[in-house]
Amino acid sequence: MKRSTGTLYGVGVGPGDPELITLKALRILKSVPVVAWPAPLEGESLARTIASPHMRDGQIEIPIRMPIEAGVFPSGAVYDEAAKEIAHHLTAERDVAAICEGDPFFYGSFMYLFGRLADAYTIEVIPGITSLTAAAAVLGRPLAARNDTLAVVPAPLEEDALERRIADCDACVIIKVGQHLSKLRRVIDRLGLLNNSHYVEYATMVNQRTSPLSDIMVDSAPYFSIILIHKRGGAWQ
Amino acid sequence: MKRSTGTLYGVGVGPGDPELITLKALRILKSVPVVAWPAPLEGESLARTIASPHMRDGQIEIPIRMPIEAGVFPSGAVYDEAAKEIAHHLTAERDVAAICEGDPFFYGSFMYLFGRLADAYTIEVIPGITSLTAAAAVLGRPLAARNDTLAVVPAPLEEDALERRIADCDACVIIKVGQHLSKLRRVIDRLGLLNNSHYVEYATMVNQRTSPLSDIMVDSAPYFSIILIHKRGGAWQ
Repeated sequence: MKRSTGTLYGVGVGPGDPELITLKALRILKSVPVVAWPAPLEGESLARTIASPHMRDGQIEIPIRMPIEAGVFPSGAVYDEAAKEIAHHLTAERDVAAICEGDPFFYGSFMYLFGRLADAYTIEVIPGITSLTAAAAVLGRPLAARNDTLAVVPAPLEEDALERRIADCDACVIIKVGQHLSKLRRVIDRLGLLNNSHYVEYATMVNQRTSPLSDIMVDSAPYFSIILIHKRGGAWQ
Repeated sequence: MKRSTGTLYGVGVGPGDPELITLKALRILKSVPVVAWPAPLEGESLARTIASPHMRDGQIEIPIRMPIEAGVFPSGAVYDEAAKEIAHHLTAERDVAAICEGDPFFYGSFMYLFGRLADAYTIEVIPGITSLTAAAAVLGRPLAARNDTLAVVPAPLEEDALERRIADCDACVIIKVGQHLSKLRRVIDRLGLLNNSHYVEYATMVNQRTSPLSDIMVDSAPYFSIILIHKRGGAWQ
């Protein structure tokens, strides 16, 4: 049995718009004495920016800083250190909210804390709005309906794996587009799906941009960008 | 250009827990004069039950009743009629919130209204927490990490299509399990994935149930049930 300790909450704060946070995430954010947040090596934490209108003065904050560029995998040592600091608060019976963009269990950075702390501490995960449905909403284009199969495919995969997976589904969401944009355009064009593809960066944020993929001429995109491919656009009609 | 009319909001109210609604959905639910909700032919509307703590007296309500069992496709005539009633309010410059469980564009019933009204009226979609991430949260098991591919597969598919799709991904979410439970167990067992599979019904609701799939002995499940299959359980560690 786990000792009497604080609870670690993995809190999804959603895709960017601070209004797309849930009531439950809000309640927990306001109630905990300690908030941990991921951030790039320099500059602002997107998760903290989303959460900040809901945080209160005097909360202890634990920044978890590391490179977030595509292809650079999380540094184990940084998470070891953050997990140790969080464990210290939990052991002292202080609840901790570890926030992340989107959803903690959907490609979320929270997983690396979960992997280190789940055996010893009580953890509760508060799901968040994913970039998946946020992107569909801002495009005004349904993701999937009825018996459609939907694939979520990370852009860093090899070109042949991408091609096979995009070919074999009814709808496809490509995440972590970043520096892989020209490879993706090549694959999608080869499959004859360029006109079925839409691009979204920073969905629901102030700097959001949406466009048919065919209008995107650059070769690189922000890490937080997505391509949606619909093969059966009228499945819901 | 569209005429000056009310706006149709497609509002995702999340998976079941009324606290898993977003601030944005809440604001719109409280502000609109008209709320449309889907329901089975008889009995309560799940979406309305989730939303009801946030609704106010005097709102006009439009019930959209139809069979929701797996395999029964939405009745076009029912949606035609509902779209007509909603259009009447929009034309009179009254905003309408059409609510649905989960997310409007993720296998949501809102799509059938969207297909009928998007050409003539202004529509805004408010994304909601999907059953996908809600199920992962209540199981305490991450969905996907790093470069995992994730497949969303509707249970009504044919057995060979299910087998091929489950075999060819790192993580798989099977939705609309319902009456297809014994077929799914057969396929998953054949792929040697029974011990990688977890079952969730009514995620985040008061009657929620979670279990390893191997402990589920019945042959049929509620429509709102899900199976999560993880092949690389430790991808985040």
